[in-house]
Amino acid sequence: MTWKEKVHEVIYEADTTAGKVFDVALLIMILVSLALVVLDSVNHLNLEYHTLFLTLEWIITIFFTIEYILRIICINKPKKYIFSFYGIVDFLSTIPLYISLIFAGSGALLSLRALRLLRVFRIFKLVRYTGAGSRVAVSLKKSLPKILIFLYSVVVISFIAGTIMYLVEGPENGYTSIPVGIYWTIVTLTTVGFGDIHPVTPLGQFVATIIMLLGYGIIAVPTGIVTAEMTKEHIKSNTQVCYNCGENEHKDEAEFCHNCGYNLNKGKKEKKEIKE
Amino acid sequence: MTWKEKVHEVIYEADTTAGKVFDVALLIMILVSLALVVLDSVNHLNLEYHTLFLTLEWIITIFFTIEYILRIICINKPKKYIFSFYGIVDFLSTIPLYISLIFAGSGALLSLRALRLLRVFRIFKLVRYTGAGSRVAVSLKKSLPKILIFLYSVVVISFIAGTIMYLVEGPENGYTSIPVGIYWTIVTLTTVGFGDIHPVTPLGQFVATIIMLLGYGIIAVPTGIVTAEMTKEHIKSNTQVCYNCGENEHKDEAEFCHNCGYNLNKGKKEKKEIKE
Amino acid sequence: MTWKEKVHEVIYEADTTAGKVFDVALLIMILVSLALVVLDSVNHLNLEYHTLFLTLEWIITIFFTIEYILRIICINKPKKYIFSFYGIVDFLSTIPLYISLIFAGSGALLSLRALRLLRVFRIFKLVRYTGAGSRVAVSLKKSLPKILIFLYSVVVISFIAGTIMYLVEGPENGYTSIPVGIYWTIVTLTTVGFGDIHPVTPLGQFVATIIMLLGYGIIAVPTGIVTAEMTKEHIKSNTQVCYNCGENEHKDEAEFCHNCGYNLNKGKKEKKEIKE
Amino acid sequence: MTWKEKVHEVIYEADTTAGKVFDVALLIMILVSLALVVLDSVNHLNLEYHTLFLTLEWIITIFFTIEYILRIICINKPKKYIFSFYGIVDFLSTIPLYISLIFAGSGALLSLRALRLLRVFRIFKLVRYTGAGSRVAVSLKKSLPKILIFLYSVVVISFIAGTIMYLVEGPENGYTSIPVGIYWTIVTLTTVGFGDIHPVTPLGQFVATIIMLLGYGIIAVPTGIVTAEMTKEHIKSNTQVCYNCGENEHKDEAEFCHNCGYNLNKGKKEKKEIKE
Repeated sequence: MTWKEKVHEVIYEADTTAGKVFDVALLIMILVSLALVVLDSVNHLNLEYHTLFLTLEWIITIFFTIEYILRIICINKPKKYIFSFYGIVDFLSTIPLYISLIFAGSGALLSLRALRLLRVFRIFKLVRYTGAGSRVAVSLKKSLPKILIFLYSVVVISFIAGTIMYLVEGPENGYTSIPVGIYWTIVTLTTVGFGDIHPVTPLGQFVATIIMLLGYGIIAVPTGIVTAEMTKEHIKSNTQVCYNCGENEHKDEAEFCHNCGYNLNKGKKEKKEIKE
Repeated sequence: MTWKEKVHEVIYEADTTAGKVFDVALLIMILVSLALVVLDSVNHLNLEYHTLFLTLEWIITIFFTIEYILRIICINKPKKYIFSFYGIVDFLSTIPLYISLIFAGSGALLSLRALRLLRVFRIFKLVRYTGAGSRVAVSLKKSLPKILIFLYSVVVISFIAGTIMYLVEGPENGYTSIPVGIYWTIVTLTTVGFGDIHPVTPLGQFVATIIMLLGYGIIAVPTGIVTAEMTKEHIKSNTQVCYNCGENEHKDEAEFCHNCGYNLNKGKKEKKEIKE
Repeated sequence: MTWKEKVHEVIYEADTTAGKVFDVALLIMILVSLALVVLDSVNHLNLEYHTLFLTLEWIITIFFTIEYILRIICINKPKKYIFSFYGIVDFLSTIPLYISLIFAGSGALLSLRALRLLRVFRIFKLVRYTGAGSRVAVSLKKSLPKILIFLYSVVVISFIAGTIMYLVEGPENGYTSIPVGIYWTIVTLTTVGFGDIHPVTPLGQFVATIIMLLGYGIIAVPTGIVTAEMTKEHIKSNTQVCYNCGENEHKDEAEFCHNCGYNLNKGKKEKKEIKE
Repeated sequence: MTWKEKVHEVIYEADTTAGKVFDVALLIMILVSLALVVLDSVNHLNLEYHTLFLTLEWIITIFFTIEYILRIICINKPKKYIFSFYGIVDFLSTIPLYISLIFAGSGALLSLRALRLLRVFRIFKLVRYTGAGSRVAVSLKKSLPKILIFLYSVVVISFIAGTIMYLVEGPENGYTSIPVGIYWTIVTLTTVGFGDIHPVTPLGQFVATIIMLLGYGIIAVPTGIVTAEMTKEHIKSNTQVCYNCGENEHKDEAEFCHNCGYNLNKGKKEKKEIKE
C-alpha cells in the first residue's frame, strides 16, 4: 500500500479511524467556513472582529487548498474529480482569498465566497441519510412529476389573475405592471401575504378574496399528492409471493405464508446452497 | 385529398410532421404573444423597446389572422368553430391591433389584448396531460362538491366574523364597513395576512386570535378531502372482473364475486392446469 | 284540516307547492336582509341609497313580523318555539326597526340588526346538506376532540413563546405586554403574519425563526387528524359479517361473501318474509 | 399511617377526596399565577390594580411555599424531588417575591416570574391525556425523526436562499446581512410573510416567487409524514397474537402465523367445537 493509497483511504473513505477523524475535521471546517460567510455580512461584527475573521479565513483556505491538492494527487483519474460537481465546488470555495490578493477589494468576491455554501451538500454526503430520511426522499421523488404539473397550473392561474389585478387596481395602487401583478398573485396564492402591495379598491378586494379562497382550496393538492404517496408505501410493503399458494402482500419480516403456512424462504435457501 | 383537407390535417391534427411543426410554431407564437402582453405593461421596457414590441405584435397578429381564416375555410361547419370557446378566444386575441388602427390610442385596448392569455388553455390542449396529471385532475373533480360546500361554510363564517370585527374595531381602526371586515376575515382565515388592516384594540386582537385558530383548524378540511380521494385510488387497486356477472372493484383477497357468488379464480385455475 | 293546519304545513313543512314557494321566498328575504346589513355599513352607499334601503328594510321587517306571528299562532306549543334558538333569532331579527321608532338614532341598533346574520343558519336548514357535506361533517365531528387537544397545546405554546418574545423584544419594539406577545405568537404560529408587530432585534428574529419552524411543523397535526378520519371511512366501509364463514369487511354493495360465496342477505330476507 | 404518609397521599396522589380537592386547588392557583404574570405586564392594568395584584401575588407565593416545603418533608428521597424538573420549576416559581424584598425593584424579576409558566406542564400531568390525545402524541413521536430531517433540509435551503437574496437585493432594500436574509427566507418559506422586509427589485421578486412556490410545495412534506403515521394506525389494527411463537401484527386475513407457520385459528376453532 503506497502513501497515495493511504491518503486516498483517509480522504475518500470512512472505514479507518484516520478516515473518520478527517471526515469530522472536514465537517467542522465546512461549518466554520459557512459561519464566516454568514457573520462576515453583518456589518458591525465585520468591523469589530476583522482580524479574527481574516485569520480564520486563512486557516480554512489553507486547509481547503491542501485537501484539494491531495484529492487530485491520490486519485487515479484526477480529471474526473476536477470536473465533477464536488470538484468544481471544492475549487471555487478555495480560491476567493487568493483572488483578493491579486485584485484588492473586489466587491464581487463575496458572491464567490457564497458558493462555499454549496459545500453543505457534502455534509449530506458525510452524515448519511437515516432510513427515515431516505424514505421521505423516495416519496418526494415519486411525487415530483405530479407536483410539477400542479406548480405549472399555479403559474398559469397566476398569469391570468395577475393580469386581472393589474387591470382592476392599476399602477396608482401599486400594481405597476403585469409582472408585479403576477408576483402579488403568487404571494397571495401561496398564503405568504407580505402586504407590500395589497388591493385598495372594493372590486380589487373582491377579486383578491376569490384568489385567496382558490389558494386555500388548492393548497390541498400538493399535500394530497405527497400524503397519498407516503401512505401507499405502508400498504404495499412487500412483493414476496408464496411458492405454494401464490398469496402475496406478506409482511416485511414474514417467514411463513399467512395463507397456507408454507416456508417463504425455502426456495431461496436451496438456491443459495447450490451456489456455495 | 383536397388542399382544404390537407390544411385541416395540419391545423387541427398532430399526426403528420407538418401538423407537429405547426403545433410547435403555434405554441411559440402563443408564448411570445403572452410575453408581449406582460412585458408591454412594464413602463420602462415599453419606452425602450417600443419599435421591437410593435414589430413582434404585427408578426403575431398576421400569423393569428392567417391561422383564424384557415381554420374557418378548411372546416365543414365554420359556424360551430366560430362560436366555440376557442373560436371566440382566437378571434378576440387577433383583432386588438386592427382596432387600434381605427381608434388611435384607446386605453381599453390593453384589456382586450389581455384576453390573449386565454390562449394558454390551447397549450394545455397541445401538451396533453401526462398520466400523473390526469389522475390528479380526476381526484380534484371528485373532491369538488365537498370543497365547494367547505368554501360555502368559510364564506358564512366570514360574514359573521367580519360583522363582529366591524362592530368591535370600527371605522377608526380601518374596518370602514362590513364588506371590508369580511375581506379582512378571509385574508386572515386563509392565513394570507397582508397586514394592511389589522386589529388594534385588545378585544379585536382577542377575536382575531380565535379567527386565526379557527382558520388553522379548518385548513385541514380541504386537505383531508383531497388526500382521502387520492388515497382511495390506491386502496381500490384491484382490477379483477367477474367472469359471470362482469362486476369489478373486488377486494384484494376476494375468492368469490360479491355480486353473484361466482368463483372468481375458477377460470384462471383451469387455464393453469392446462398449461402444466 | 283547519286553516291553522294549512298554514302550519306551508310554514313548517316543504312537501306542498305552497310550502316550497314559501321556503324560496323566505330564502330570498333572508339574503336580501343580509345584503342590507352589509351594504348599509358602507358609508357612501348609505348616503346615496338611503330611501331605497329604508323601504326594503320596512318590507323585510313586515314580512318577518307576519312570519313570526303566524309561526306562533299555528303551532301547538308556542312557548317551545319562542324560546328555541330559531325563535329567539327570528324575534331579534324582526324588532330593530320598531326599536328605532321609539329610540330615534340609537347607535347600538346596528349591532342588533347584525344578529339577523344568524338567520343564515336557517338557510343551512332549508338547503339540506347533500351526502357529500354530511360525510365531511361526520369526519369533522369525530376529529373534534383531537383537534381541541391540539388547539389547547397551541395555546400553551403561545403563552410560553409570547412571554419569551415580550422579554426579548420589549415594549420599545411593539411587544407592549405579554397578551400582545401571545397575540403575535398566534399570528405567527398560524402562518397569518400581519406584520403589524414583528421582531427587530437579532435575538428576537432568531426566536421568531424557531417559532415559525415550529408552526410549520405542527400545521401538519390538524391535517393529519382530519385526513386519517376521512380515509378511515373508506377502509371500514361496512360492518356486515357472513353467516357462513364469519368473514367481514365486505364492500357496501356486496350481496355474496367474497370468501365463501354465501348469500349475505339471505338471513335478512327470511326475517322480512316472516314479518310480512 | 403517619401524618407524613397522609400528606404524601394528598399531595402526590389523587385517589382520595382530599387528594382531588388539593389537585383542583393547585390547578386554580397555577392558572391564577399565570393570569397574574400575563396581566401584570399590561401597563395600565398594573397601575390601576397594583394593590390587588400584589395581594394575590402574596397569597400564591405563600401557598406555593407551603406546598414546596410539604413536598420535601413528606417524601422519602427529598433530593430526588428537589433536583427533578418539577422540583426546580416549583422552587423557581416560588422565590421571585422573596427576592424582590431583598433587592427592591429589580427588573430581571419579571423574567424569573415568567418561569412560573412552566408550571403549565403540571396541568398536563393533572388533567391526564384522554385516549385521543395520547394517540396523537404517539403518532407525533413516531413522525419526529422524519420531521427533524425535513426541518434540517428547510434550514439548509434557507441558508442558500437567504444568501442569494442578500446578494440580489442588498442592504439598501432591507436585507442588511445574510442572517437577515435567512430570517426573511424562513418567514417566506413557512408562508408567514410579515412584510417588514420584502423584495423591491424585479430580480429579487422573481427569486422570491420561486422561494414561495418551493415553500408551497414542501409544506406538503410534514403533513404527509404525520398523516401517513396516523393512517398507518388504522390499517394495522389487527391484535391477533400467535399461540405458538407470540408474534403479533398479523395481516387481517392471515390464517397462519407469518413467523412460525402455526395455524392462527386452531385454538379458537377447538374452543368453538367444545362450545357447540
